[in-house]
Amino acid sequence: MPGSNSAAAEKVKPAASPAADKPAEIAGNISYHAQYSPHFSPLAFGPEEAFYATAESVRDHLIERWNDTYVHFHKTDPKQTYYLSMEYLQGRALTNAVGNLGITGAYAEAVKKFGYELEALVGQEKDAALGNGGLGRLASCFLDSMATLNLPAWGYGLRYRYGLFKQVITKEGQEEMAEDWLDKFSPWEIPRHDVVFPVRFFGHVEILPDGSRKWVGGEVLKALAYDVPIPGYKTKNAISLRLWEAKATAEDFNLFQFNDGQYESSAQLHARAEQICAVLYPGDATEEGKLLRLKQQFFLCSASLQDMIARFKERKADRVSGKWSEFPSKVAVQLNDTHPTLAIPELMRLLMDEEGLGWDEAWDITYRTVSYTNHTVLPEALEKWSQIVMRKLLPRHMEIIEEIDKRFREMVISKHKEMEGKIDSMKVLDGSNPQKPVVRMANLCVVSSHSVNGVAELHSNILKQELFADYVSIWPNKFQNKTNGITPRRWLKFCNPELSEIITKWLKTDQWTSDLDLLTGLRKFADDEKLHAEWAAAKLACKKRLAKHVLDATGVTIDPNSLFDIQIKRIHEYKRQLLNILGAVYRYKKLKEMSAEEKQKVTPRTVMIGGKAFATYTNAKRIVKLVNDVGAVVNNDPEVNKCLKV
Amino acid sequence: MPGSNSAAAEKVKPAASPAADKPAEIAGNISYHAQYSPHFSPLAFGPEEAFYATAESVRDHLIERWNDTYVHFHKTDPKQTYYLSMEYLQGRALTNAVGNLGITGAYAEAVKKFGYELEALVGQEKDAALGNGGLGRLASCFLDSMATLNLPAWGYGLRYRYGLFKQVITKEGQEEMAEDWLDKFSPWEIPRHDVVFPVRFFGHVEILPDGSRKWVGGEVLKALAYDVPIPGYKTKNAISLRLWEAKATAEDFNLFQFNDGQYESSAQLHARAEQICAVLYPGDATEEGKLLRLKQQFFLCSASLQDMIARFKERKADRVSGKWSEFPSKVAVQLNDTHPTLAIPELMRLLMDEEGLGWDEAWDITYRTVSYTNHTVLPEALEKWSQIVMRKLLPRHMEIIEEIDKRFREMVISKHKEMEGKIDSMKVLDGSNPQKPVVRMANLCVVSSHSVNGVAELHSNILKQELFADYVSIWPNKFQNKTNGITPRRWLKFCNPELSEIITKWLKTDQWTSDLDLLTGLRKFADDEKLHAEWAAAKLACKKRLAKHVLDATGVTIDPNSLFDIQIKRIHEYKRQLLNILGAVYRYKKLKEMSAEEKQKVTPRTVMIGGKAFATYTNAKRIVKLVNDVGAVVNNDPEVNKCLKV
Repeated sequence: MPGSNSAAAEKVKPAASPAADKPAEIAGNISYHAQYSPHFSPLAFGPEEAFYATAESVRDHLIERWNDTYVHFHKTDPKQTYYLSMEYLQGRALTNAVGNLGITGAYAEAVKKFGYELEALVGQEKDAALGNGGLGRLASCFLDSMATLNLPAWGYGLRYRYGLFKQVITKEGQEEMAEDWLDKFSPWEIPRHDVVFPVRFFGHVEILPDGSRKWVGGEVLKALAYDVPIPGYKTKNAISLRLWEAKATAEDFNLFQFNDGQYESSAQLHARAEQICAVLYPGDATEEGKLLRLKQQFFLCSASLQDMIARFKERKADRVSGKWSEFPSKVAVQLNDTHPTLAIPELMRLLMDEEGLGWDEAWDITYRTVSYTNHTVLPEALEKWSQIVMRKLLPRHMEIIEEIDKRFREMVISKHKEMEGKIDSMKVLDGSNPQKPVVRMANLCVVSSHSVNGVAELHSNILKQELFADYVSIWPNKFQNKTNGITPRRWLKFCNPELSEIITKWLKTDQWTSDLDLLTGLRKFADDEKLHAEWAAAKLACKKRLAKHVLDATGVTIDPNSLFDIQIKRIHEYKRQLLNILGAVYRYKKLKEMSAEEKQKVTPRTVMIGGKAFATYTNAKRIVKLVNDVGAVVNNDPEVNKCLKV
Repeated sequence: MPGSNSAAAEKVKPAASPAADKPAEIAGNISYHAQYSPHFSPLAFGPEEAFYATAESVRDHLIERWNDTYVHFHKTDPKQTYYLSMEYLQGRALTNAVGNLGITGAYAEAVKKFGYELEALVGQEKDAALGNGGLGRLASCFLDSMATLNLPAWGYGLRYRYGLFKQVITKEGQEEMAEDWLDKFSPWEIPRHDVVFPVRFFGHVEILPDGSRKWVGGEVLKALAYDVPIPGYKTKNAISLRLWEAKATAEDFNLFQFNDGQYESSAQLHARAEQICAVLYPGDATEEGKLLRLKQQFFLCSASLQDMIARFKERKADRVSGKWSEFPSKVAVQLNDTHPTLAIPELMRLLMDEEGLGWDEAWDITYRTVSYTNHTVLPEALEKWSQIVMRKLLPRHMEIIEEIDKRFREMVISKHKEMEGKIDSMKVLDGSNPQKPVVRMANLCVVSSHSVNGVAELHSNILKQELFADYVSIWPNKFQNKTNGITPRRWLKFCNPELSEIITKWLKTDQWTSDLDLLTGLRKFADDEKLHAEWAAAKLACKKRLAKHVLDATGVTIDPNSLFDIQIKRIHEYKRQLLNILGAVYRYKKLKEMSAEEKQKVTPRTVMIGGKAFATYTNAKRIVKLVNDVGAVVNNDPEVNKCLKV
């Protein structure tokens, strides 16, 4: 069907001056993309088509900076940070991109020429389903900050297809539906068909005549790179988030079996490749589930390290034949939690078995290259992998982990005799249950990294004083703190323009968007009633927008003048949504006991609890059901209705 | 790795004036695509990257004409021909596109600015693997001709992934390897994400209270449209080849099963969707193979007809509510052989069950819409489908076919009593073997089409006098002839420029490229020695090029002055490659018996036999092995070496 605005689109002459910044030129560029980068029928130019054309036009800007950044760092060859994370919670990219590039106004004006509001087009974008919680958002905010600080940094992750699931609330509680953010395509990712690495699973270790070892056999998949541009704020720097897609190739397709009617086995490796990038954190209650998670972790680590090594060699021709000692001064690998721990034995393997280095040299390089960020002090949340599964899937890596463990124990005994009694809790391999020997991933990280950090001062102190205290006596300088933060651009400037304007007006600068400490400058106006009034007006405007959204999405009318009591995050017992909803029940009961007069004095309150429960987390799902059931009772009770909504 | 020509590419300022035709502008446009439509690393600009950027630049030209053509026919609403074919043998598109657009010279000059020869870039293109023989090439030439004649026509086909296999010759003979022409991507296809239709398999027929019937249940896949532009020669007309890809969606992905480790069953429908477009003519020796072929045929027919009906409705608003009698004056469906026969019962089903028409009206529309091209008179090559398989996969269609058969028989008895004795061979359903009742697809086509043609005068006469003679007495005007041809642009002008120039020079016009009859104008120069000399020189130039290619590809040196005796086509017993190679053996033996003097008098001959054997066609594979073995003996025998090469 022709889009409603196709007539308007036809009137704007297509012209692809890439990275135009005047509204008329931008409109020409959007028109160019609508017609010459087509993904829809020729006449179609509805909101969806307009979003894609606009995004591709914005992408031209990004590509310009991105390629310049790439070439610049390629030539200057600085030490580059590589951030390895199983998840990134990117959120929508269009608002952020035009915001960071400072061209929001020009694009808003340009799309008006086609009869659209920028807001409406922004709403067409599907979230990149690459993460589901704080760990992922932290990773994304890190990338944003590093780009803004002009640092040479890249993120590495996996290109999940169904990374986020769609939550459907039924009478039974939460049900999960797969949602495919790549069903059409993403305008923000660019495949790099020249960047493909093999990743092996299973197989065995062969000992060559010269005594060196080689991992052979098993199954080999391909990792194909997709790059997502990460623009910095008020800078021309744009860095990359490189996502790996697992694929099998035509050679893995067994034509003979297919022609013989054995369809499933003919494309077995293709099916397995698709499993790797299908889902973020697939259920791991079964053996298959555990194996798949380990495959995902290794896939990310192996492809990323091969890529770093290729870039290290490419940036200076003489590195092809050696110069490995330079590696740690050019490459920093940051492990975001223990999920990418396999980067350690994989880097060892690549250096020894592929590049021919000896253990000591490989170990020195690995140790100086890798750092580890810890996110939790709960012992039960620290990853442990079955040695049996590890040996089956990654036989060579298990050998290397054993050697790391052995050498660590020997080092403690020879150099830190006083710690000998602590070895059992410090060592990497735990065989205390001979039926279920495990690899302790956090211990492997601490032993093999030159730097370990927590993500808040309190947290880092606990690491030093409790969880990793024994290691501190061996490596007193290894542990440090890096307090987590979120970007004030996305989370304040772009998503709350009203409040941002007030802050900028009173501070007489918008520098706070890059340096949040400047907000202390508001302190001196703390008692200024004019500021109070403006501030309250901005809050009310946002609350009205939210109330409208709630009405549109759920049909529930809420009072923008009530107190908004909001908790939105993954549903988890330790996050205490249960306490929150019990609080609402308590308030409800109190209200029921009150007289009409008493109720008059109560501040009306709207409790909003949002979040998804992991598919196999039964207690969390019960909480979801309880919250919805409490809401149904409270919201339909006219007696308390004005004072409490859930 | 940076491409060797990346420095040159950086110097050309990117500018996307779409459809530029001056070399400098074209170079800017190529540079634009290299940087802003990226598929490779930023610095990469080797021959492969240059090919894709050039192809995308040429595509801009095509898109301009293509969209204009689309809009034009959308407004003028002519009767449009839809060509349904299981295969298209498109060949490489770049040379053909610039040739048909008349911009070969400008592009050749433009790519020189990047240090490339157009010839070299053309060699980077992968053949679209959508066909494997004459039937497919005929279909492609038809599209080319219809575009050149400014006809409103579209082709419909399937987007096979491994349509062509790679032939590997080993000591054992031919082996097949899958080859993925879409491994990277094709610059010539454009997905239409707004054109998606559901296609059902299996299930059952439900009878509604009003007596109408509805096909429900079973499994439903989605057909997504990919369009390939077909430019006309010396015209602005550009038509579409629409290819369907089978896909399952996120809703078909069972997240619960996946999280439970049941990976295969969680994505079962996705795997089945991939099977449909995996291979052209998959082996049908097994029951599964037969079922898959029938699925492919129905998938093509159902998606294409739904698309035609949508377009019919879209072009005039009032058609949404009826006006079905107009359908045959706006839509012509041409069946290329019996593979798309299911278009007949599917059109009946759509008109009756989806649009609410009665049998008579639906039949009248179907009959006047559908035509059938027959390609073979061999009874054993005429498709027959098991009624049991048909009823299982397509229960509603089997009902409709039964009704067509019944009404046909009744019509013969009531109106052509004299033919009653012939009914057994004329009817659609053949139950003579009660264990294996079949549907005769050719009979269904003849009974349901208003026009049937053969593809050569002799062939069409045999159809009328033998194969379909009984039908002729009922429908004397239904049968006609359309002689097959190939396009003189691709097969003479573009692939033999030397000879084409000579023809144009002697005829004093290049109109022969659109009207091949003009070649008779050369007759009067038949004895002109100057023409002979030029002609021979052109032939020798081509033979030298071929000799170089043979040397590069096989390492065998051949004499360009020898007689080239070439047979290149699918290996099949009826194509008699066996006779040809036995001829070579005979010549070899004769030569061995000759004296050196006698050999002097023999015209040296180079026998070239090329072709692939179908994977499961044992005798054809034996012929491939024989040809290679004869070649090994003859080519390594110094005694005959100068006189014969195979």
